[in-house]
Amino acid sequence: MAGSNSSDEPRSFQVRRLQITDKSKGFIELLRQLSVCDSVSDDEFRDRFQELNYLGDDHVICVIEDGNSGKIVATGSVFIEKKFLRNCGKVGHIEDVVVDRDARGLQLGRKVVAFLTEHARSMGCYKVVLDCSTENLAFYEKCGFKQKEVQMVQYFI
Amino acid sequence: MAGSNSSDEPRSFQVRRLQITDKSKGFIELLRQLSVCDSVSDDEFRDRFQELNYLGDDHVICVIEDGNSGKIVATGSVFIEKKFLRNCGKVGHIEDVVVDRDARGLQLGRKVVAFLTEHARSMGCYKVVLDCSTENLAFYEKCGFKQKEVQMVQYFI
Repeated sequence: MAGSNSSDEPRSFQVRRLQITDKSKGFIELLRQLSVCDSVSDDEFRDRFQELNYLGDDHVICVIEDGNSGKIVATGSVFIEKKFLRNCGKVGHIEDVVVDRDARGLQLGRKVVAFLTEHARSMGCYKVVLDCSTENLAFYEKCGFKQKEVQMVQYFI
Repeated sequence: MAGSNSSDEPRSFQVRRLQITDKSKGFIELLRQLSVCDSVSDDEFRDRFQELNYLGDDHVICVIEDGNSGKIVATGSVFIEKKFLRNCGKVGHIEDVVVDRDARGLQLGRKVVAFLTEHARSMGCYKVVLDCSTENLAFYEKCGFKQKEVQMVQYFI
């Protein structure tokens, strides 16, 4: 993919917030590279988009659109948890970071994580956290994260 | 503490949602047993309480009040993250579970975690997650959780 840019223009990879039109640019197909995401209808997408939009800066999903192909090639999200702890502190939680398998090696993951981390900082969070597999640990260390606790999960379905 | 119940009545430990009057019942002092929580004024407490209240069932803090002493002896919180993944699925995130050091051994932690887990299930979440230290891993396994990923953190202050 790095060699598939047939135009003379350099490929443009700006991070921006998710827009409702991104469904038709491969956003759901990209999420499928991370986990199960079978069928999301246009109505379901719009409803969830509006629910999240309602939370404003407290829940931000960012994407990178390949300026040449018009396809969404990376995404990630961060939501802001409001606590009483830490003198009514706030914590950013990063979730669902994924880079298109055809767009790896372009530092897009780092761009996404930097965008989300900076958002958490600008919101006044005292820390930002995420859970990752051991295979991705080195990547997040390069992004400035340190290993802390153990994630536990209970599935309902 | 287990032997300090001078009344003939059995001690009552009902889980309920946080109320604004719980600040005067030792809620902040209890959080201090978990992490830093120096000074929270009545105004700051009220403002944060109202912010969270505004989120309704999407962010619930529960407490256990000792029916005899009127003191808050356990707490925990859960917030509901709305995703596009998993067909617009939802995930419950449990945070800030703590039991008063004088009220341990009474299964209050399990009561709190069961309440929060059941709330996430009732909200339609497909899973509930939390991060814990390795010392608390066995406790959460007893609560029905399994170890999954690694928590990474970046502190801003």
